[in-house]
Amino acid sequence: MTETALVLFSGGQDSTVCLAWALDRFAAVETIGFDYGQRHIVELACRGQIIDRLRGQFPAWAARLGPDHVLDLGILNTISETALTREVAIETGETGLPTTFVPGRNLVFLTFAGAVAYRRGARHLVGGMCETDFSGYPDCRDDSLKAMQIALNLGMDRRFVIHTPLMWIDKAATWAMAQALGGEALIDVIVEETHSCYHGVREKRHPWGYGCGQCPACELRARGWTGFQARP
Amino acid sequence: MTETALVLFSGGQDSTVCLAWALDRFAAVETIGFDYGQRHIVELACRGQIIDRLRGQFPAWAARLGPDHVLDLGILNTISETALTREVAIETGETGLPTTFVPGRNLVFLTFAGAVAYRRGARHLVGGMCETDFSGYPDCRDDSLKAMQIALNLGMDRRFVIHTPLMWIDKAATWAMAQALGGEALIDVIVEETHSCYHGVREKRHPWGYGCGQCPACELRARGWTGFQARP
Repeated sequence: MTETALVLFSGGQDSTVCLAWALDRFAAVETIGFDYGQRHIVELACRGQIIDRLRGQFPAWAARLGPDHVLDLGILNTISETALTREVAIETGETGLPTTFVPGRNLVFLTFAGAVAYRRGARHLVGGMCETDFSGYPDCRDDSLKAMQIALNLGMDRRFVIHTPLMWIDKAATWAMAQALGGEALIDVIVEETHSCYHGVREKRHPWGYGCGQCPACELRARGWTGFQARP
Repeated sequence: MTETALVLFSGGQDSTVCLAWALDRFAAVETIGFDYGQRHIVELACRGQIIDRLRGQFPAWAARLGPDHVLDLGILNTISETALTREVAIETGETGLPTTFVPGRNLVFLTFAGAVAYRRGARHLVGGMCETDFSGYPDCRDDSLKAMQIALNLGMDRRFVIHTPLMWIDKAATWAMAQALGGEALIDVIVEETHSCYHGVREKRHPWGYGCGQCPACELRARGWTGFQARP
């Protein structure tokens, strides 16, 4: 396609595969990241290295890769510090989401991505949201994203398309998508440079990458890798 | 109603009337404001004075008025500084919107208001958006706000209601609504304490308030006042 895409790129495995997916499809691709507090600093630090490696190892993609936009969203921490009323605190406990949870975080990301895409003349927004690995976050659901596309398009008087190539596939299929898009070279970029571990562990190397190997994110990633290796 | 409302309160005439409208209807009312750069500092400075006067002069409302939340949205300036591609620059010129325009600003406000409302247990969001005094901003349109309600509700797994009491009325009717809600005392608060002037002029006093009297915002306000005074 001759059009420009803006990829929501966190530096994690999913958004790296989405970036490759966009580079395979669109004439021009830009990236956007959001900086908000401690736990994501390791992930954000990976972003530049991933972009550098894609640029260095995939000449066709390098020609399409435009600027990276990083927005400071420290304000999300202000909101997560907003005192909860008792009613909501109870409800939150029941749904099992942590009280630091910022509801609708992905709606915030998409709205800012839409604003940047508007100014950059990009028609396509690409994100790694996924319903299959159920995260408990309603703002990752397909319905939410389709409603958001309509709200953005009406509110900005544009015709953006929100693409979510990982919405209905599992982590094993995400690894397979990476291999189909960029072969072993892309698998290696993902294993070496992307970060999922909740604890930010970079010391321990596994076949699927670095991480503590214990937290839910590591477990999910390891299970996906095992499924990918077991594919015929 | 026995429920809590969160009012998008900028300190301007429209959002002050919306705040009175909410105080007249809901058991508990909180306010939210957004701080983003120079032109709005006068307006933001008015917020505290307006809230203080409502609290002092309207005992029934004072009992319902909860905390005021102010969020730093300096990030909007970062986005408006994002270089425009040539294509968009031309389009923007044609629509007559300034290049500092942040598309979808009201979507950003509503998403953050939704996140704060979620944490505060508020079910109602109230905003002064209006189609009648056509501003050229698609994110003030009724369609955009209704789509946004659906996106917020799906994305946060809640049932918020977005109220826009000024959507279909003109500025004369907004003054009349203020009078119906709070009589001459509320009219006086709006004249004395709310700010509309684009140039931030506070030195010149008109029957309808302070301002340069020349800019589009002052003209709109003056015309509304004249229409209000001419009512039977």
